[in-house]
Amino acid sequence: MSPAYEFQGWLGHSPDAANGSMKWGPFEPKRWEEDDVDIEISHCGICGSDIHVLRSGWGETPYPCCVGHEIVGKAVRVGSNVEKIKVGDRVGVGAQALSCLRPECPECAAGLTNYCPNGQVSTYGSIYPGTLGKSYGGYANFNRTCSQFVVKIPAGLPSEHAAPMLCGGVTVYAPLRDNGCGPGKAVGVVGVGGLGHFAVLFAKALAADRVVGISRRVSKKEDVLALGADDYVATEGDSHWRTKHARSLDIILCTVSSPQMPLADYLGLLKYGGIFLQVGAPDGGELPPINVFDLMQAGLKIGSSSIGSPSDIEEMLQLAVEKRIKPWVMTRPMSEANQAIQDMEAGKARYRYVLVNEKQAEK
Amino acid sequence: MSPAYEFQGWLGHSPDAANGSMKWGPFEPKRWEEDDVDIEISHCGICGSDIHVLRSGWGETPYPCCVGHEIVGKAVRVGSNVEKIKVGDRVGVGAQALSCLRPECPECAAGLTNYCPNGQVSTYGSIYPGTLGKSYGGYANFNRTCSQFVVKIPAGLPSEHAAPMLCGGVTVYAPLRDNGCGPGKAVGVVGVGGLGHFAVLFAKALAADRVVGISRRVSKKEDVLALGADDYVATEGDSHWRTKHARSLDIILCTVSSPQMPLADYLGLLKYGGIFLQVGAPDGGELPPINVFDLMQAGLKIGSSSIGSPSDIEEMLQLAVEKRIKPWVMTRPMSEANQAIQDMEAGKARYRYVLVNEKQAEK
Repeated sequence: MSPAYEFQGWLGHSPDAANGSMKWGPFEPKRWEEDDVDIEISHCGICGSDIHVLRSGWGETPYPCCVGHEIVGKAVRVGSNVEKIKVGDRVGVGAQALSCLRPECPECAAGLTNYCPNGQVSTYGSIYPGTLGKSYGGYANFNRTCSQFVVKIPAGLPSEHAAPMLCGGVTVYAPLRDNGCGPGKAVGVVGVGGLGHFAVLFAKALAADRVVGISRRVSKKEDVLALGADDYVATEGDSHWRTKHARSLDIILCTVSSPQMPLADYLGLLKYGGIFLQVGAPDGGELPPINVFDLMQAGLKIGSSSIGSPSDIEEMLQLAVEKRIKPWVMTRPMSEANQAIQDMEAGKARYRYVLVNEKQAEK
Repeated sequence: MSPAYEFQGWLGHSPDAANGSMKWGPFEPKRWEEDDVDIEISHCGICGSDIHVLRSGWGETPYPCCVGHEIVGKAVRVGSNVEKIKVGDRVGVGAQALSCLRPECPECAAGLTNYCPNGQVSTYGSIYPGTLGKSYGGYANFNRTCSQFVVKIPAGLPSEHAAPMLCGGVTVYAPLRDNGCGPGKAVGVVGVGGLGHFAVLFAKALAADRVVGISRRVSKKEDVLALGADDYVATEGDSHWRTKHARSLDIILCTVSSPQMPLADYLGLLKYGGIFLQVGAPDGGELPPINVFDLMQAGLKIGSSSIGSPSDIEEMLQLAVEKRIKPWVMTRPMSEANQAIQDMEAGKARYRYVLVNEKQAEK
């Protein structure tokens, strides 16, 4: 039985799509399998990587592509092999569509699909293996995804809050949790944009003793404290920040990706045994030069992580409900996606845009 | 009461000392305090950093200096404040003489004197604060050190085996232990020289499932397997090593410090969540460029550490006795120190030289 709906979405046809020239049109979703779920999309967050993919910034994108990997909506078709999702459930999908899912893959077998060495993390627009077709994302009316990557959205969490957590939220939640963010710990967050604002919220929710926002300008101070941070460091506003805050933090989560960032100075803010978690990825990926003596002197580590697994997402959403986390999002009609990605690039989001399919959101 | 012995040692008077022009002569030890211990030296290991200090390679050395920070001997004078050491005990001293030891210092209060931010790790030749004089090392007949840094050498461990563990051993033992080396773990050791040979020995002693030596040439294979490693990778001998050993290790301990080392390739050998521990310090300290995507793809970390604390040393020596660890050392008469440091620089040590004060060793 074929479904009584047509898949349509905002399609990028060339790198110029990133400049706001996506075209709304129909697309052929991946071939249906009985492990899949079709989702009638109500919300989709805008992530910076959407724009990278639209412009072929991380390798050549197979156009036409439809980006968007912070998808929330209603399950409207559920494969016969799927047990955990029922038609009518409010569900979400993050950014991991192309893991190999083979039982002999240690990462997939452990649920660490986001670290599968045989697949690749998909921000959509990618090709499925074999004859399954292409993956399409959430700037659309419907989405089809393997149920392994579909999570239920818990009651009590508004869809426009859940959507940007599915990538932006879990990208900072998972490394904070995995590196001991919690009681007794002091956490610094470098860069307070989409990811950084989530890092402040989740570090507080994980009960860190102290959360310190770190950014260049004084102008963000008010927002950062309003998000719940205990302190704010403006690196261009206080020439003594390096000494005043030396060896005061256990964890620094860095969402900034400039090769000019003062990495050695940030490392000086860590206590013995501290860790610097780099989640921002500069173009090309190269970090500023690292001097081993800066790590040696205080027994430091530098680490990174890649989004989160479906079970990480479920755990995070539960915490968000329990701790009543309210991300700062601005909703935009799905019809204005072209303008919204341009505004995102211009840095106007405070702190995350969410596209809303208004008719479907009302249902 | 003044002691009935004169302090004498091999003194470097200029950077040329590193080329083998140290001169034997008397020196004035630090001013006696009742926390101190005088040690009649029987053995002193030769560490690569001795040569760096002799040639002012890590900042200007205050000549005359006497290097050597792998000291074993007999306590011959013990201050009245010292409880744990008695005259006649066989004792050792590693490389940490200038920590601040103030109770308000979090690191010193926790026994992490090697990470004291107010002092500096001393490889001797450094100046004590105030009027206490200068610190002198173990290429000598006697040594005077604050008892906080003096450990007892357990019975059953030959002095020539204990000496090189006091710096070389603990520099690899502490990070292996702190990063989970043990049952269920696979450990790679890059570079098999003085530090690397200890890393193979201690990784096995800590009961790692698998220990893999990694070096450029095939020629070291036999030694590495004889040390107890389970496998050996010659990066210049097997063009498929990157794929054959991909994602196979939990920990890599790297003792090599060339800025040309293939760091990204080594990272590819780590499993999800693995850690690369850099204990080799290149001149200047700069690591090869690091691409954040290499860390991101498998959730990796890069860390470093600085020698070990006195309690780390005690724990390591105990393990060495229990597991009957036999480092590969070559003893040299103390009188041949100038030749021995030249041979060390020429890479002739298999794998560590230990200077022996023969008369004092016989006692």
